[in-house]
Amino acid sequence: MDKDREQGVDLKTAQRLILGECAALSEETIPLGECVDRFPARSLPALAPLPGFDQSLRDGYGIGRAKEDGEGKPKACFRVVAEVAAGDTRKFRLHPGEAVRIMTGGLVPTGCRGVVPQEYCQVAGSEVEVPVRFLTEDGFFIHSRGSNIARGRVIVSRGTPVRPEHQIDLAGVGYHALPVVKRPRVHFFCTGSELVDPAGGRADGQKFSANPYLLQSLIRLAGAIPQDLGMVEDDLDGVCQILGRIDQSAADVIISTGGMGPGKYDLIEEAFSRIGGQVIYRSLKLRPGKSTIFGLLGKSLFFGMPGPPPAVHLLFNELLRPALLRLQGAKRCTPGQSKACLTEELLLRKRGLPRLKSGRLFFDNGMCMVRPTRQIESANCYISCPAGRRLLRSGEMVRIHLVDGGLASFS
Amino acid sequence: MDKDREQGVDLKTAQRLILGECAALSEETIPLGECVDRFPARSLPALAPLPGFDQSLRDGYGIGRAKEDGEGKPKACFRVVAEVAAGDTRKFRLHPGEAVRIMTGGLVPTGCRGVVPQEYCQVAGSEVEVPVRFLTEDGFFIHSRGSNIARGRVIVSRGTPVRPEHQIDLAGVGYHALPVVKRPRVHFFCTGSELVDPAGGRADGQKFSANPYLLQSLIRLAGAIPQDLGMVEDDLDGVCQILGRIDQSAADVIISTGGMGPGKYDLIEEAFSRIGGQVIYRSLKLRPGKSTIFGLLGKSLFFGMPGPPPAVHLLFNELLRPALLRLQGAKRCTPGQSKACLTEELLLRKRGLPRLKSGRLFFDNGMCMVRPTRQIESANCYISCPAGRRLLRSGEMVRIHLVDGGLASFS
Repeated sequence: MDKDREQGVDLKTAQRLILGECAALSEETIPLGECVDRFPARSLPALAPLPGFDQSLRDGYGIGRAKEDGEGKPKACFRVVAEVAAGDTRKFRLHPGEAVRIMTGGLVPTGCRGVVPQEYCQVAGSEVEVPVRFLTEDGFFIHSRGSNIARGRVIVSRGTPVRPEHQIDLAGVGYHALPVVKRPRVHFFCTGSELVDPAGGRADGQKFSANPYLLQSLIRLAGAIPQDLGMVEDDLDGVCQILGRIDQSAADVIISTGGMGPGKYDLIEEAFSRIGGQVIYRSLKLRPGKSTIFGLLGKSLFFGMPGPPPAVHLLFNELLRPALLRLQGAKRCTPGQSKACLTEELLLRKRGLPRLKSGRLFFDNGMCMVRPTRQIESANCYISCPAGRRLLRSGEMVRIHLVDGGLASFS
Repeated sequence: MDKDREQGVDLKTAQRLILGECAALSEETIPLGECVDRFPARSLPALAPLPGFDQSLRDGYGIGRAKEDGEGKPKACFRVVAEVAAGDTRKFRLHPGEAVRIMTGGLVPTGCRGVVPQEYCQVAGSEVEVPVRFLTEDGFFIHSRGSNIARGRVIVSRGTPVRPEHQIDLAGVGYHALPVVKRPRVHFFCTGSELVDPAGGRADGQKFSANPYLLQSLIRLAGAIPQDLGMVEDDLDGVCQILGRIDQSAADVIISTGGMGPGKYDLIEEAFSRIGGQVIYRSLKLRPGKSTIFGLLGKSLFFGMPGPPPAVHLLFNELLRPALLRLQGAKRCTPGQSKACLTEELLLRKRGLPRLKSGRLFFDNGMCMVRPTRQIESANCYISCPAGRRLLRSGEMVRIHLVDGGLASFS
């Protein structure tokens, strides 16, 4: 480990080091109806052209080549030889002067030059007369085979999440199940002798533990599977035990919260090293989140995060979520960024490390605007406060990181 | 039904009519860890103050009132009488001249004036000396009871979805389970004699059915529970049968796709009326989506949507998702809107009804920009094309509707 990593890495370096350890997991096959926000294990080509056959775009009459009258002019009258409903699989061939009654979506017969919408047609018995302008055209109101998607064209690329609209095309070209990258399994535990579960009571001196709830949600929102290993006291043997008990073959990622500060009871790093973990960095040049370690425990990624839940939320957005997305094969996984106009002054307690402050992004007349969150308000972005600055002014353009991927696709 | 509704309602009117029929469903209690994006059945007040007790913000020494030396000056030396770890529930009282060793998060003893961070302290045996500047202050490095959240303060209001950050505060003030509004149960069926499931084969004339996959996903993304009733042929008796079989007490919402156009095989409205459904509107002044009916079947909301999946996607975003959110108690439920600068010319096939075109919103230097989607690209917004206009120019500010609620919270 070089000196930099010993002293602390900046956010970009941390992301690079983490993503460098994340290879896509193995694949599984799931039903098409359940694949939204999953990542295909490989690019998915069209198995068939779309549409799969020439089909009518209107309810009307599919006409063949016109017969000629005595003067060599095309005759506008056709003999109706069949009726083609949507779903009809019978195949017809139209001879000159013949037409079929055809419905929207119906299979266009061989020899059909186009479909005349019924509102333009005059029907008398088994004859239909169409306006002469249709006699000199070709292909009108026919949605021709493969015109939307040619066979083999990629519908969803590797690295891109499947969205509902992709399902339309995927079903259309014949998929009913997809090979996708497995969801990462994330085991987590929270240390802190002061923490108790809110399901029980609390004495003064004890705090209700929030991180287990927060992590469960964040892990699920990132497409991964949470496994809560419980709470542990601030005790080296206890932490070593819980780390040692983890089945590394069942945990793609391990997270701890708490036990990371410089104080007397901070012990995650010691326990992690003692059971053979390899530290990749041990401090982050960022507030909050300075006391964060990242390492490997066997094949599992290990994130030792600080205890305060707001720091956990931030570090999850900036480091964990990218890792979980990359393990699922995502190409773009770090938070989307944008610039926005700050609508309120932002004064930090002190200068120093770069900071990320919770913010609310909103739109005003086509402009991105941002303000710090109020108390008890959820952030939809983080406002980036560069190192060394203490005051960001109202009206200033600031850089923001989007939260939760709600906007990741917009960046 | 007045003439307007007979001839077609505009989008806003449709939304108003639909939301007018949507009252929040009954409540259920779920674990706090599973409540993200659910709506509380009532506003959730803090059950206890946060923090729940005066706690130390630093590892250091909690000092009592200083003793005075012979000249009446406060003495900077304190006798350390105990050690308070985080989680320690023992209660101490500090007499003048006494101090406790205390950890971050530790319970501040009665009579403690403040916590001096350990880096400022000189320790000798059971004595600690602190810088004199701390002797004249009060409350330093103490996070006092209730200073974040007072008891009774509302953490999440009725009508607001629970987000991960709310879980932090909710757990902190003692929640471990929440009363939330139930998820709507949505039964759907797709009509079209031409449709077959992609799990089987397909003959020319038949199409793979995409709507069941699309609807499953969209319904789940809107927080509701999908129930696929299957595919039905374009046949009045068949549609009547499937509608009649639905257990209206188990279906908050019923959706059909297909069978809605003006053609020969369009029959949803007839079947719906025949089994006693009450039509509220039968046409929408919008493209795509003109052929849409909304009504009531007993207590179930009924949406008859057109067959083309892109129209289903759009109508879901504009009408169904708002309904499903309102049934869950959401206050804001119609798609978030913004203005954006169009970066490419948008030419429509014809003038006429207002249109919504699939678009991609992106940010450029703090500005909202939008372009039409390419083929096989998912939309993150719809570009609103006003009635009567055929050409929207590059550089023009256009109104957009956000898709999927990804940005709904930003509007």
